[in-house]
Formats: sequence, structure tokens, C-alpha cells
Amino acid sequence: MIIIGEKLNSSIKSVRAAVESRDAAFVQDLARRQTEAGAAWLDINAATLPDEVDSLVWMGETCRAVCDTPLCIDSPDPAAVGAALERLGGGCMINSITLEENRYNAMIALAKQYDCPLVALCMDDNGMPETPEDRIRIAKALSDRLIADGIDPQKVFIDPMLSPVGVVETAGQDALAVIRCLSDELPTHITCGLSNISYGLPARPNINRAFAVAAMTCGLDSAIVNPLDTQLMRLVYAADAVLGNDEYCENYIDAYRDGFFDD
Amino acid sequence: MIIIGEKLNSSIKSVRAAVESRDAAFVQDLARRQTEAGAAWLDINAATLPDEVDSLVWMGETCRAVCDTPLCIDSPDPAAVGAALERLGGGCMINSITLEENRYNAMIALAKQYDCPLVALCMDDNGMPETPEDRIRIAKALSDRLIADGIDPQKVFIDPMLSPVGVVETAGQDALAVIRCLSDELPTHITCGLSNISYGLPARPNINRAFAVAAMTCGLDSAIVNPLDTQLMRLVYAADAVLGNDEYCENYIDAYRDGFFDD
Repeated sequence: MIIIGEKLNSSIKSVRAAVESRDAAFVQDLARRQTEAGAAWLDINAATLPDEVDSLVWMGETCRAVCDTPLCIDSPDPAAVGAALERLGGGCMINSITLEENRYNAMIALAKQYDCPLVALCMDDNGMPETPEDRIRIAKALSDRLIADGIDPQKVFIDPMLSPVGVVETAGQDALAVIRCLSDELPTHITCGLSNISYGLPARPNINRAFAVAAMTCGLDSAIVNPLDTQLMRLVYAADAVLGNDEYCENYIDAYRDGFFDD
Repeated sequence: MIIIGEKLNSSIKSVRAAVESRDAAFVQDLARRQTEAGAAWLDINAATLPDEVDSLVWMGETCRAVCDTPLCIDSPDPAAVGAALERLGGGCMINSITLEENRYNAMIALAKQYDCPLVALCMDDNGMPETPEDRIRIAKALSDRLIADGIDPQKVFIDPMLSPVGVVETAGQDALAVIRCLSDELPTHITCGLSNISYGLPARPNINRAFAVAAMTCGLDSAIVNPLDTQLMRLVYAADAVLGNDEYCENYIDAYRDGFFDD
């Protein structure tokens, strides 16, 4: 399971304050703790700040001073992503490209110039898909176009943009069916912003945890999540062991030896 | 998800001592707490005690004095099950019937006489199946025979007798494939003794929890588990919500209102 740590996001009040005041210790603590908890990528998002590019670059450089975990530059604005990449250089993921024509063309040019993996959201110029069939259709079109444009499928993380379980009655089943279909049919990774799924329900971390394991069972192999939810990450390690993604349960047993399951 | 609470088992040292000394308060506390945590059935097992039948009957009557949760009489010995049923009367589940010829014939006679649901273990006179194909073959034969003998499929809980994840490398994937196949093809419930799956691995409750959600995603609709594992039961409620087994997430929201997700 490839975990993209979501905590360094300016939509979180404490993070916004830390970035505005250039509080490096706060940001570095989150970078380190997410890495220790199992994040393979650190998402950085400053979209709510007026100086988005400067903030992204500062967040990225501040993280890099304390850990090697690669960055995932999270902005819908290709100009901001391009300016940040120019100063942060290679090794970053872009979050995100879509099938919206302008955004697609600008983001793919950046991905090729800087050799970036991409989170690819299933939406086009008609907006967000509403039915499972539309999600699958757009996901396939996006995957096909990225591959035709020369992107290695192993660098593509398709996000089917799932609806919350508590809003549409069949959303959970639909989401899992979409993930299973995409996992069977696409050569790319399948990811999702896990916490969307629990929107509108109480005690949301429980829903996120159960959905994570259910979605992994259906082929999800990446997620944009809060790795500081220890119960969630324990389940992710255990699910990888149970699902045969962790040969001889080695990672699970290593995590156990590292005290990851101690209370 | 139909939870069969496994705690009232004489192979657990403290339970054995309580049953031997006829400590009603201890047994009633376990009966009540398992029920409150979501057990639909209370398994009672006294197979390690010399007075198995008297112990089963005492355990059953002691539980019934404090809660209405029906009993699941757990013994491989048809004579013990029969003697216990004679004194405890109807409304009990039998755990378990198998395709072993003598056991099958004796248990099915009891199930019909007392109108009992049955846990049906996938084994025959050749012993435990070793491959997924053998498990599926025996499960189907057992289901077919029970139905042909007049048992309502909704009263049959097929247990595929899964191998531990940590012992055979592909056991987790195999187990999930077996559950998916049986769930698709049989009209019965599918259950399993969940804790077997983690045998030989450290921090076992984590494996049990992840496997529970993965197996529910593949169609498991019952499990013989420790409902006093709060994290497990929270995941079961959340998984039912995510998997569309809980219309409008009603049970999940009720559990939340009852404080089930409070820390």
C-alpha cells in the first residue's frame, strides 16, 4: 500500500497558521511523524494561502531538511505547480491532473518536463462523474490518454473521486465496485482521498478504516490519508499481510518489532 | 453481520475455572457484555471439562437467567449436544456438523428434532481440506446435503475452516477467494472462526480485524469472534455501513448514539 500523507494541508487550521508564520518545527514534526508512520509521499497543499507558490516551496524545502520522503505538490493550478516545481526540482509527484482540457495539457507538460508521477482525478470538462459507469469511463479515458502521451502506468495514480457513503445510499458498494473494476482493468495504481468517503457520518475514522481495508481488498493500492491515525495504519499493515501484498508478512512483522503495534 | 460470541469457552483458563466452580456472576458478565457488544448468539463450549453436558447445561441456564441471546452449543460430540439440547430445549444453534458420516447423521437428526440452525465445518472423513478447491468442493457438498435433507439454507452457517495467514504464504488470498466463491454460489450464511487466521503471527487482533473487514468485503456474513474486542466490533459496524449491509447506516448511527464509538 502506497500511503500519501495528507496532513501538510493549509485547509487544516493549525497547518495554515504554521505555514503563515513559517514555523519550521511544526511542519518538520508533521513531515517526520507521517514518514515514521508509513507515508511514502508527503502531500503539500497551500491552495488556501495568498502566496501559494512561496508557501509550497517553503513547505517543501522545510520538509526536505529533515526527511527524504518525496513531496506530492497538491494544487489544481498548473501555474502554481509549475512555479513550485521550478524551484523544488525533480522527484515530486503532481496532485493532480484531470481530463479537463486546459488542466490536462498544462499538467502533462509539467509531468514530462520534471518526470513526475501523477495523481489523476476522474473528472473532465463536464465536471465530476455521478454514476459508477461515468467514473469508470472517465478513469479509463484518463489512463489511456496518459499512457498514450508516454507516461509510465506505474507513475499514474488514478483517483476515482468517490462519493460519501452517508450521502448516497449505495455509495459504498458503488465505490468498491469501481475500485475493483479499475484495479482489474487498468495498468495504473488506484488511489483515493480516503476521508471523503465518511463525509456526513459520525465517528468518521471508523468508516475510513473499514473502507480502507474493504477498498484494499478490491484492489486499491494507494491512498491519500492521515497516517497519524495509528489504528488505520495498523490495519493497513495487517491488510497487506492478509491480502498477500506482504511476502511472508515481512513488513508486518518488522512493524511489530519496531513497536508499531504496542499500545 | 451475524456475530457468534466465542468467549464462553472452557479452553479459556478463566472461563474453565468459573464453570468448574459454578461462578454464575463471571459467566453472566461475559454473556451480558458479549450481547451488549453485538453478539447475536452466545457460543458455549465445555469440551475440555469432564462433565461436559452438565457444564453446558449450567452455562446455558446461567446465561439465560440474564439475557435473551440464544445459545450456540459447541461440541464435536453429538451425544453431548443431544443431551444438552434435551435439557436446554429449542432455540439453540448447533456448532458443529461436518461431512464425517457418523457426525453428519447424528447432528442432522438433532437439528431436525430441535429445529436448530447449524454451523457446518468443511471437513469429511478424509479430514480437513488442504487446498482452496477442496474447501469449496466440501462446502458445496455439505450445503447441498443439508438442503436436500430439509434444512432451511438461512439456518446453515458454512465455515470453510481457513488456514492461518502466517503459516501458508497464500492463505489469506486463498481464504478470501474461497469466501467470495462460497458467498456467490451458496444460499447459506458463510461464517468462520476468525482468530484461526492470525495463528502464528504477532499482535494477532490486528490481523483478525483486517481479515474480518476483508472477508466481509468478499461476502462473509457471520463470524465466531471475540465481541469484546471493541476495535473489531467498531470495524464490523463500519464495514456493514460501507458495504451496503446497513440501510441508511442506521445500525452504525444507532451504535454511535449509544456511545459505542466513544473512547
